[in-house]
Amino acid sequence: MRLRRIDHVGYAVTDLDEAVEHHRRLYGAVVTHTETIERDGVREALLAVGESFLQLLEPIRDDSPVATFLRRHGPGVHHVGYGVADVTATLRDLRAEGIRVVDEVPRHGSRGCLVAFLHPKSTMGALIELVEDPSRPTDGIPGDARLRPRGLTPPLHRTLGTASRDADGG
Amino acid sequence: MRLRRIDHVGYAVTDLDEAVEHHRRLYGAVVTHTETIERDGVREALLAVGESFLQLLEPIRDDSPVATFLRRHGPGVHHVGYGVADVTATLRDLRAEGIRVVDEVPRHGSRGCLVAFLHPKSTMGALIELVEDPSRPTDGIPGDARLRPRGLTPPLHRTLGTASRDADGG
Repeated sequence: MRLRRIDHVGYAVTDLDEAVEHHRRLYGAVVTHTETIERDGVREALLAVGESFLQLLEPIRDDSPVATFLRRHGPGVHHVGYGVADVTATLRDLRAEGIRVVDEVPRHGSRGCLVAFLHPKSTMGALIELVEDPSRPTDGIPGDARLRPRGLTPPLHRTLGTASRDADGG
Repeated sequence: MRLRRIDHVGYAVTDLDEAVEHHRRLYGAVVTHTETIERDGVREALLAVGESFLQLLEPIRDDSPVATFLRRHGPGVHHVGYGVADVTATLRDLRAEGIRVVDEVPRHGSRGCLVAFLHPKSTMGALIELVEDPSRPTDGIPGDARLRPRGLTPPLHRTLGTASRDADGG
């Protein structure tokens, strides 16, 4: 099985701070990582859920794909990221199968992971992201320290307002 | 943190057999469970992905919520299910916070788990299902035999066509 875990579910939100507060208040969720991804025109907050993340995405530009999604659909699930052992090999094999892709070659995404998006036309309507995170196990047997994302130091009680060492320099 | 893991991502599909074959061909995914959930008007196939499931949902009636979703949006992500330790307590607390719910009291869903859906109007646009599965760990430290859904016997190489002991009697 090529998909080793659900790496994250990405939600499109209009206000990142409000979305973080919503998840803190209702579920006790804490932010484990924040980052601005210029290429995708978003800033994100990651909330750890088991071996996965809940990823909150707020557009920072009107031409961001997430901004387009919000205009068309409103807030909600934008995409699903699956952990794979080797994004380059997986993407090559899927393209050989005739699958349409958004990224013809892997690129760096959130947390510095190598990622590639597949096109919803080829994935039964869902926008799928393949994520290769070398800090996480890919053998399907989670449960050890490798589950912890690189560069994150528990306890993970940072909030967006106090995070000072994140990739967006905030 | 009340959400202990992503239990599943639920995809609305028009043809379950085709969707299963798609995931087998592209990712090597195997079906670990099939079930017809009369109350929800769907038949489902679960594909294990790490500590989570990819849930494929095909409507069996025109008045199924998944059928309505397909007419409005086409195939794609229908909802996200999160594992919680106690659905009854979580639902009670969320309702006390003013969260709109679909299920006022927990009910039995896929795999016999106690479940409850929250209303997208109160969850930033996403349809969220709370799932209590006593066979799965709720302490956030996965990795042992309890991860295996109840009643499933590995190796999990059954396919929809050969599953004979499933809840739909197929």
